[in-house]
Amino acid sequence: MKGKFISFEGPDGSGKTSIIKIVEKFLKDKGYDVLVTREPGGISISEKIRDIIHDVNHTEMDPRTEALLYAASRSQHLNQKIKPALLEGKIVLCDRYVDSSLAYQGIGRHLGLENVLAINMFAIDSFFPDLTIFVDVRPEIGLKRVFSTEEREKNRLDLEPLNFHEEIYQGYLELIKRYPNRIKKINGEQDKESVASDAIELIETIL
Amino acid sequence: MKGKFISFEGPDGSGKTSIIKIVEKFLKDKGYDVLVTREPGGISISEKIRDIIHDVNHTEMDPRTEALLYAASRSQHLNQKIKPALLEGKIVLCDRYVDSSLAYQGIGRHLGLENVLAINMFAIDSFFPDLTIFVDVRPEIGLKRVFSTEEREKNRLDLEPLNFHEEIYQGYLELIKRYPNRIKKINGEQDKESVASDAIELIETIL
Repeated sequence: MKGKFISFEGPDGSGKTSIIKIVEKFLKDKGYDVLVTREPGGISISEKIRDIIHDVNHTEMDPRTEALLYAASRSQHLNQKIKPALLEGKIVLCDRYVDSSLAYQGIGRHLGLENVLAINMFAIDSFFPDLTIFVDVRPEIGLKRVFSTEEREKNRLDLEPLNFHEEIYQGYLELIKRYPNRIKKINGEQDKESVASDAIELIETIL
Repeated sequence: MKGKFISFEGPDGSGKTSIIKIVEKFLKDKGYDVLVTREPGGISISEKIRDIIHDVNHTEMDPRTEALLYAASRSQHLNQKIKPALLEGKIVLCDRYVDSSLAYQGIGRHLGLENVLAINMFAIDSFFPDLTIFVDVRPEIGLKRVFSTEEREKNRLDLEPLNFHEEIYQGYLELIKRYPNRIKKINGEQDKESVASDAIELIETIL
């Protein structure tokens, strides 16, 4: 692969989306060819899968079903959008990837990190990002941001109680220990420009 | 579990559906409480997943995505419909279950039996049927039946070439060797009443 694959992770309300926008502009100004994406990434099949996952009426959804649906959506998005862009030499900035499933379903839903890792290794055919940036924001701060932003649509996962989000946060910290070379943490409780600047510093080490 | 869980497997056009109807009537006449089902089994979440899998426009679907979607649909159907029926003591007759994925995706799509088994073990939490009946019909005979029945709607998998269906058939034979105690083969090229009678004979050994 000629390009570079960078994923951004963090609790809900960690500000990933705004930070990615600043990073994208910076890299484009430097002359890089950049693709910003997030699952489902405009991939028709993945969009349809995401609609099923996020539907607030699906309260009866089994946690294993949820984990498998995320993995299915990820597999399609990776093969149809991310890999072709990397082959063209692009820098791909992806808002959430496999670590979200490990934290949300593996730890948050108590399915077990190893179990969720196994189905995701299948989904991504062991294709990990070159760099994963964890935007570190305490879950109570993140959730406050989510619920103070009226235009933001709340999905089925946002509506889970605080302890669910706390477990996810602990899950992320566990993942950083597990993949110290790939996952790097930045302080997400600073102002946006400083967070983005920390992200750019990390990205420059792999370009 | 008080009930019994019996799955039916076979190539497309093996006549499973008609045979299950005859078996159902026989068991009900004997006084058993019977549930006939098939994925997606009227489970709203699973129906929506199946619509994505079967959509003939989804020619770009990645084989891994397909395998994960089947597993997701199966997990929901198992937990929301099959397990509750078994807890009530019912005999559950299920048209296709995990072996279909092992044969179709693991072998037909060349994803590897072990890989597809791993994601399905996660999906079903290692919950296998008490008995699996393989209705043995050569794939060329099965396909002829599918395409001579006009009212039968052809899905995305029916439209695959003959060699895909031949590989699946070989896959089933491999599964019988792997699970000799669980999977039993009956001759599906006889008249329907004889096939059903062979199925009933097997079922009586576990009641």
